[in-house]
Amino acid sequence: MITRPQAKALDAADPLAGFRDLFVISEPDLLYLDGNSLGRLPKATVARVREAVDDDWGRGLVRSWQAGWMQRPREVGDRLAPLIGAGPGEVLLADQTSLNLFKLATAALDAAAPRSTIVSDAGNFPSDLYVLAGVAERAGGSLVTVDGPESFSAALDPSVGLLSASHVNFKSGKLADMAGLTGRAHDAGAMVLWDLSHSVGAVPIDVNGAGVDLAIGCTYKYLNGGPGAPAFLYVARHLQDQLTQPIHGWWGQQDMFGFDLGYQPAAGIDRFAVGTMPMLSLIAAESGIEISAEAGIGVIREKGMALTALMVDLFDELPGDLGFSLASPRDAEDRGSHISLSHPDGYRITQALIERGVIPDFRAPDIVRLGAAPLYTRYVDVWDAFDRLRQIMESGEHLAFTEQRSGVT
Amino acid sequence: MITRPQAKALDAADPLAGFRDLFVISEPDLLYLDGNSLGRLPKATVARVREAVDDDWGRGLVRSWQAGWMQRPREVGDRLAPLIGAGPGEVLLADQTSLNLFKLATAALDAAAPRSTIVSDAGNFPSDLYVLAGVAERAGGSLVTVDGPESFSAALDPSVGLLSASHVNFKSGKLADMAGLTGRAHDAGAMVLWDLSHSVGAVPIDVNGAGVDLAIGCTYKYLNGGPGAPAFLYVARHLQDQLTQPIHGWWGQQDMFGFDLGYQPAAGIDRFAVGTMPMLSLIAAESGIEISAEAGIGVIREKGMALTALMVDLFDELPGDLGFSLASPRDAEDRGSHISLSHPDGYRITQALIERGVIPDFRAPDIVRLGAAPLYTRYVDVWDAFDRLRQIMESGEHLAFTEQRSGVT
Repeated sequence: MITRPQAKALDAADPLAGFRDLFVISEPDLLYLDGNSLGRLPKATVARVREAVDDDWGRGLVRSWQAGWMQRPREVGDRLAPLIGAGPGEVLLADQTSLNLFKLATAALDAAAPRSTIVSDAGNFPSDLYVLAGVAERAGGSLVTVDGPESFSAALDPSVGLLSASHVNFKSGKLADMAGLTGRAHDAGAMVLWDLSHSVGAVPIDVNGAGVDLAIGCTYKYLNGGPGAPAFLYVARHLQDQLTQPIHGWWGQQDMFGFDLGYQPAAGIDRFAVGTMPMLSLIAAESGIEISAEAGIGVIREKGMALTALMVDLFDELPGDLGFSLASPRDAEDRGSHISLSHPDGYRITQALIERGVIPDFRAPDIVRLGAAPLYTRYVDVWDAFDRLRQIMESGEHLAFTEQRSGVT
Repeated sequence: MITRPQAKALDAADPLAGFRDLFVISEPDLLYLDGNSLGRLPKATVARVREAVDDDWGRGLVRSWQAGWMQRPREVGDRLAPLIGAGPGEVLLADQTSLNLFKLATAALDAAAPRSTIVSDAGNFPSDLYVLAGVAERAGGSLVTVDGPESFSAALDPSVGLLSASHVNFKSGKLADMAGLTGRAHDAGAMVLWDLSHSVGAVPIDVNGAGVDLAIGCTYKYLNGGPGAPAFLYVARHLQDQLTQPIHGWWGQQDMFGFDLGYQPAAGIDRFAVGTMPMLSLIAAESGIEISAEAGIGVIREKGMALTALMVDLFDELPGDLGFSLASPRDAEDRGSHISLSHPDGYRITQALIERGVIPDFRAPDIVRLGAAPLYTRYVDVWDAFDRLRQIMESGEHLAFTEQRSGVT
């Protein structure tokens, strides 16, 4: 049996231990295992938002657009780029994940015409599938959804213009073979668009090395960018001037202040922007990205694998008759930085955990999802969370909660 | 000649005088006449953003989504609704102006098929025209641009599915006849989409009374919502369930947390949302909207007309040989809350004004735009600004700046 002192010893040896101090920890006893949904608040962000409000907006007023705001989406994109293996000028911090998916998938199908099928898999985030189906239907085609990434090859017929998938499955945490699938799609003449929302900041990514065409992702999970923080988009440099996205907004225009009446897409990554960016939310996202870049994705990944391995070990130590199944890959190399336990009472167990000061999240219909955010999650947090989970199941206190088919974000 | 004491007397009698104290005024000597581009920072916003960062994000973490964040776009929309004459459940605070225009224009043309022409006018904001042209072309039609709103009637043939225009022209400030044009478009079988960006918070608007189908607008001008604050969209209640927008994102899904694989648009206004909202920017926008609602649009409009009338009077008092022309309607009833002066040296004059502590903005090729934000612009600010303008022109100090075809936001 793994003991609490053993978990404490792992924390003592953790090269990332000091990074926890960079985050606001309002409730020291709270076991926060949902950084894969909304990451914690970096202390530096508090000061940076204050400065953005008081100085940039309050004092600088409209002058702040020229004094730096306008360049920020590209600058922050460049800071994020190394975390996904992209080069300068290939990443833009902008808009929402769904919107970026819509823009890039539409641009890809436009370029792929007459190919008009998009292939994805049932493990992709559901609203990615909604967006992709809508895009394919508008192009006169359809979305074909296979069971999982391993089934993509059979679906890659000559009608397919785009393959789109999540790098890490939001439920199981399973990690897809980015390079292999990208190569197979290219062999079949299709472009590839990866959703990196559940892997960026947790798993090393090499979009350039894998030859990825397009990618999107959010910054509010492992990158600790804040609630609804602007997402990012990546377009491989050689494709940027070949693609145009469908929303011909002000910020994608070549000469924004020329006020010409015709749309002329900007050169490079800027053409994938739409309208005026929510600057306070964008500025709030910067510190988290910088912290991840500073820590280095290699050491983050090592700790993430060790944390989820500890979760799996502690799961294995739970009494076998509690009704849980591991809904994630057993090999740490095959998963991202969360694990999922399925249980028929998953919703009620989630509520009981929250009541006990453990924050996981619930994913319908039966998944209790436990995230490990290596920058601030401690080994002892994981140990304590499983200890409380065991106590809940032994006492049956989760049965006091009402069953409900709904979720916790 | 109007004297400075006369301007001071107008301020002394101003029923809105006390509202200036609700805003952060970092540089008391700065004459800020660009609230029609980026409004000032409300003091209440400083505290509210701090609370959103420290308490909602820092302490509440992911729990804050269920504790209120998720409802906020609709709640803030309901607070904004009376300012445009809309009812509860008809306005959503969401996304960017360009994106909202794309969504609603696409939804309108989808519903109008086989009509696929959009009509707009050359005085609409240029990027509105970019968006609309893109939407029409994707529907197999085209954008027809007439000279000005008065020329719409001739263009309203049976191919037209949508008429879209700005309520207040961003250059001249000219106010369009919302009710009249809406009626004429409806008579021709077309829907109507108004861009309220330059009128909301400055001019009384009655979308319900005018029978308007769709509207969009931004909140960072007269509503003082902050840089890139989320925009809003309005869809008349009777149309909400007949229209679907093209970006099938997570926040527009009926049961977000059901994680079904198929898109099922939410009922009502929610279906016009896309993805996760930038909450810090959205929360920052609330106080400004509340202040405008509290002041009342009637008294705001009265003062706005008086301020721009003073601008016109002071313009008339400038020596006739300075080379300025008034590029705005002479009758206050016919304009919004800014006036534009055209001058061949407009860019250099703008730079000289900024150097002198007056912030207007420049709109290529030759427009110096002066905005009156009734909540904090004083009559004496207007008087002083024209006084400095006269001094600049008499000394020729603007000639020291380099001519440049570019803009100030």
